[in-house]
Amino acid sequence: MTADISNPIIILVDPQLGENIGAAARAMFNLGLNEMRLVKPRDGWPNQAADKNSAGALAQMQPVQVFDTLAEAIADLHYVMAATARPRDMLKPVYTPKSGIKECRTRAAEGQKIGLIFGPERMGLINDAIAKSQGVITIPTNPDFSSLNLAQSVALLAYEWLRDQGKTPDKILNPGDSFPVEQEKLEEFLTRLEEELETRRFFRTEEMRPTMKRNIRNMFTRSDLTDQEVRTLHGMLSALIEQKKPPK
Amino acid sequence: MTADISNPIIILVDPQLGENIGAAARAMFNLGLNEMRLVKPRDGWPNQAADKNSAGALAQMQPVQVFDTLAEAIADLHYVMAATARPRDMLKPVYTPKSGIKECRTRAAEGQKIGLIFGPERMGLINDAIAKSQGVITIPTNPDFSSLNLAQSVALLAYEWLRDQGKTPDKILNPGDSFPVEQEKLEEFLTRLEEELETRRFFRTEEMRPTMKRNIRNMFTRSDLTDQEVRTLHGMLSALIEQKKPPK
Repeated sequence: MTADISNPIIILVDPQLGENIGAAARAMFNLGLNEMRLVKPRDGWPNQAADKNSAGALAQMQPVQVFDTLAEAIADLHYVMAATARPRDMLKPVYTPKSGIKECRTRAAEGQKIGLIFGPERMGLINDAIAKSQGVITIPTNPDFSSLNLAQSVALLAYEWLRDQGKTPDKILNPGDSFPVEQEKLEEFLTRLEEELETRRFFRTEEMRPTMKRNIRNMFTRSDLTDQEVRTLHGMLSALIEQKKPPK
Repeated sequence: MTADISNPIIILVDPQLGENIGAAARAMFNLGLNEMRLVKPRDGWPNQAADKNSAGALAQMQPVQVFDTLAEAIADLHYVMAATARPRDMLKPVYTPKSGIKECRTRAAEGQKIGLIFGPERMGLINDAIAKSQGVITIPTNPDFSSLNLAQSVALLAYEWLRDQGKTPDKILNPGDSFPVEQEKLEEFLTRLEEELETRRFFRTEEMRPTMKRNIRNMFTRSDLTDQEVRTLHGMLSALIEQKKPPK
């Protein structure tokens, strides 16, 4: 998304089911990553189940590269993080996705090529693979149910990578062509509404009037009404104040 | 994760394949959410394919509730966000996952019950459903390939919800029992190393010596060596400085 920073390369080590490779490809490409490498895919490559489950992603992404060893797959990279459960018996920094991806981005901004490696389904990465990485990213999961699948893990790290990079504003108020009404027109409606209420003695006491008016105004000013909506409100008000017609 | 804040309820509207309901359940439960509601699941409920694909999540989560209408499914909630593509013809605030979930958390912290609604696979939510929500969360995807699947969408919002709430430290340096070596022992090794290098005239000139020593020290001090590792380094050094033995 940012021209200056290369996206990380997703590396699947010993993946088993083609379906999972395809789902991982779909997830990463959905989120804007387009380079995948495979180390010894069990069922060979290319793989029909992977193609099918990628929903077209594999055909559109950069062609997947296949390697015999992890060492070859990461040979040209500068910084490699292993996405896996917290290793018990290795001295390796363990990051959350947030802090780990931040570290990756810092390095990518310096021109480093980044790799994220993922182990086979259910088993996770073996220690030899983890030892080849500079650090570990562990996705915090429910301790009672932590079987996050491969595509989900890929998706979450890809999402974390892209999370703060998009150009989408945090909040868009007017998704369509509509635009908030000019205050003058809103004021015109509110004044009309108040007058109609006055003539019906809605504001019981002099003391209450200012507070009640303010409360009513707040209801309408808070909601970014459009021009069309204010016209609709006028129409509703007109309808409401008409004399009830006798049933035919 | 935080005792004071209730997690959002995941609501699937008109879900079709049981497999996808199961995958969504697995994803949300992996990430610590445990309440799912369904509105008119096409193939009825309970659903064997859903159970199977949930990898046990559906059996451990709070029992799924099923409703005939979205209105009933959200009746007891205070704030509902629709996860869907940006609606073209409706006046509804559109948030990124980051800002939308932040809004949800702010409200949850006030005691509001939050719902996140998701439409059927491929189709997304219909306008009537979106109209029942207070806002829209749109996950930014690759404009050339935006077919994020249901379980992935659920996973990403669940992840965003939990992202900043965990108690996991951002970085753990010593995952095992190991602990950094005392500086005294590191110094002892470095001094020994320098002496061995001195006796081999490694430091060519007087001028270069301080810089070279500093560079060597930096290599070893930077990496949080453990006691055991320093012992290993001593062993390596001892081995290296031994006379080459003649081949037998």
